Amino acid sequence: MSIQVKRAYNFNAGPSALPLEVLEKAQQEFIDFRGTGMSVMELSHRSKDYDEVHNQAKASLKELLSIPDDYEILFLQGGASLQFSMIPMNFLTPDQKASYAITGSWSEKAFKEAKLFGNPYEAASTKDSNFSRIPQLSELKYNADDAYLHVTSNNTIFGTEWKDYPAIDIPLIADMSSDILSRPVDVSKFALIYAGAQKNLGPSGVTVVIVRKDLLEKANTNIPTMLKYSTHAEKNSLYNTPPTFGIYMLGEVLNWVKGIGGMNEIVKRNEEKAKLLYDAIDESNGFYVGHAAKDSRSLMNVTFRVKDEELEKKFLAEAKQEGFVGVNGHRSVGGCRASLYNAVPFEAAKAFSDFMKQFQKVNG
Amino acid sequence: MSIQVKRAYNFNAGPSALPLEVLEKAQQEFIDFRGTGMSVMELSHRSKDYDEVHNQAKASLKELLSIPDDYEILFLQGGASLQFSMIPMNFLTPDQKASYAITGSWSEKAFKEAKLFGNPYEAASTKDSNFSRIPQLSELKYNADDAYLHVTSNNTIFGTEWKDYPAIDIPLIADMSSDILSRPVDVSKFALIYAGAQKNLGPSGVTVVIVRKDLLEKANTNIPTMLKYSTHAEKNSLYNTPPTFGIYMLGEVLNWVKGIGGMNEIVKRNEEKAKLLYDAIDESNGFYVGHAAKDSRSLMNVTFRVKDEELEKKFLAEAKQEGFVGVNGHRSVGGCRASLYNAVPFEAAKAFSDFMKQFQKVNG
Repeated sequence: MSIQVKRAYNFNAGPSALPLEVLEKAQQEFIDFRGTGMSVMELSHRSKDYDEVHNQAKASLKELLSIPDDYEILFLQGGASLQFSMIPMNFLTPDQKASYAITGSWSEKAFKEAKLFGNPYEAASTKDSNFSRIPQLSELKYNADDAYLHVTSNNTIFGTEWKDYPAIDIPLIADMSSDILSRPVDVSKFALIYAGAQKNLGPSGVTVVIVRKDLLEKANTNIPTMLKYSTHAEKNSLYNTPPTFGIYMLGEVLNWVKGIGGMNEIVKRNEEKAKLLYDAIDESNGFYVGHAAKDSRSLMNVTFRVKDEELEKKFLAEAKQEGFVGVNGHRSVGGCRASLYNAVPFEAAKAFSDFMKQFQKVNG
Repeated sequence: MSIQVKRAYNFNAGPSALPLEVLEKAQQEFIDFRGTGMSVMELSHRSKDYDEVHNQAKASLKELLSIPDDYEILFLQGGASLQFSMIPMNFLTPDQKASYAITGSWSEKAFKEAKLFGNPYEAASTKDSNFSRIPQLSELKYNADDAYLHVTSNNTIFGTEWKDYPAIDIPLIADMSSDILSRPVDVSKFALIYAGAQKNLGPSGVTVVIVRKDLLEKANTNIPTMLKYSTHAEKNSLYNTPPTFGIYMLGEVLNWVKGIGGMNEIVKRNEEKAKLLYDAIDESNGFYVGHAAKDSRSLMNVTFRVKDEELEKKFLAEAKQEGFVGVNGHRSVGGCRASLYNAVPFEAAKAFSDFMKQFQKVNG
């Protein structure tokens, strides 16, 4: 099967690049999974064969992120967008407050959904700087009787990322959709972490939730069965049919991360890739203008503008022509964005930084 | 790639068999989809390439089920189980009633979820006959001011299936998870049809909803964004990242159905397969005992017992040994069940009916 495989330089913001090795393995066993005579997709979710896939994926995530024993790992559906509602539905009551750090479009959406269930307020907002920075921990407002503090660890659209998290006495909840598994994280600081899989973990259609068990015990009960975290925790995410193929792919991606050396190797690679692009920006003498403040720069999404709009159009057109996929900024903000998730190879980042330099040379 | 492919006799109740041709095509283009240098899974859900996949799947479903223009087709997540909540959340108010025909475990679950949002009551229940039959249309109770009447078209666990539907003035809503696309259906009789994909449509992780547009206009508004049908209708099911690979597979399954001759051919095949097994039961002189009343028999799930329990254990053990997968009854009821969804080939049904006859010959 391994003749020369044509691979795009894929900088999509999600769904995004997957490791070639993972795709090749999945392709090979696509029709006959481990001698069953069936595709993974055709296995019953109650079968022994699928059970191994499911539990292995959980075990690998627990290992890679050093998730403590008092946490549950759930595989849900609906993406982070459904979590925006499930979190207040489970953990907020009409008379209660919850604090939201507003660092971009996704935190704004999470904040808005919480209003249906209780009284969310802003812990901080960097909207007045066009979300170009993450607030200092000292800027964060929250109260001892808040239901929780919610943060968005990485802001895909604006290219900013939290470098550190507050150590607080109320539950800390994080949307880590776009940087989970990109660097080591101290899970014990969080009461709940959630992430859509389609950036660093696998294909779209799986949502990972890591939740401290004591939080589940205190959750609201009079809510729909499928939207109650405890329903899924009690049934090992098998209350109803899970997205089995997506969970299988997620497990294979986790195996790949373990195989290349785990979180230390991943973060090293991610830092190297991001440095290539940020250097191209910083050394351009203002030809490229980074959107994020330097101390808030994301390792995952590098956002920038070309100094004038006509040149930017030309830049994006030529980038496309050269085979760089997904480098237009999010449709809500424009500009340029290269997403450098785990599976984007060094070579792709190198080729793009070379392209940036060459484009500047010709047009600068 | 086509050496002899080992294929199991897959009678799983869902996730279940997929057409071999579809699996082979998906395997072939798994890493490089239409020359993009990316897997379908790696495409942005906002890209032109994915857009074609998405819209083609919708168009094929519209064509195959002759869905009228005043209906929306949605691709959601969460399975039928999440629909159990979304339906009353969108269409029922606390002071309103809704009528539920109780024909098995899934209708019971749907009924239970509706209690959170309004006043559901039983249109009919066949629980006292252990759900072995579908009620007569004349048995159904409902009122002109009910929000809707809810039915479960096919009862996977008990092996019963509605043969006809009432023509009523209130919205008729059907869970068609386990028999959608197995036979022609008059969509115009329904206000909303929903189905988890993992039986006749594709892999798990995609939920299809077919909803009449006027229903959306009357829906409740003060509910979470992701749980509002109109959110997804307004954005062509692209409000957030959809399960792209699942939708791609669904589209390929629909192409396969079109290729073999559409709904007329499908129902013919399904009737032939089911007849093989029901004949084996009916001609066994009581050795095999069908669960469903004859006029309520499902084409999709054939449920039966072997006349005594020891023999039944032996039957299931030998069936497993002979390579028949998934013929144990649902864990909640026991017995035997063979699911004969669209992708189960005639040969598999033939082999199983031969096995039933042979087993009876030896043990009868």
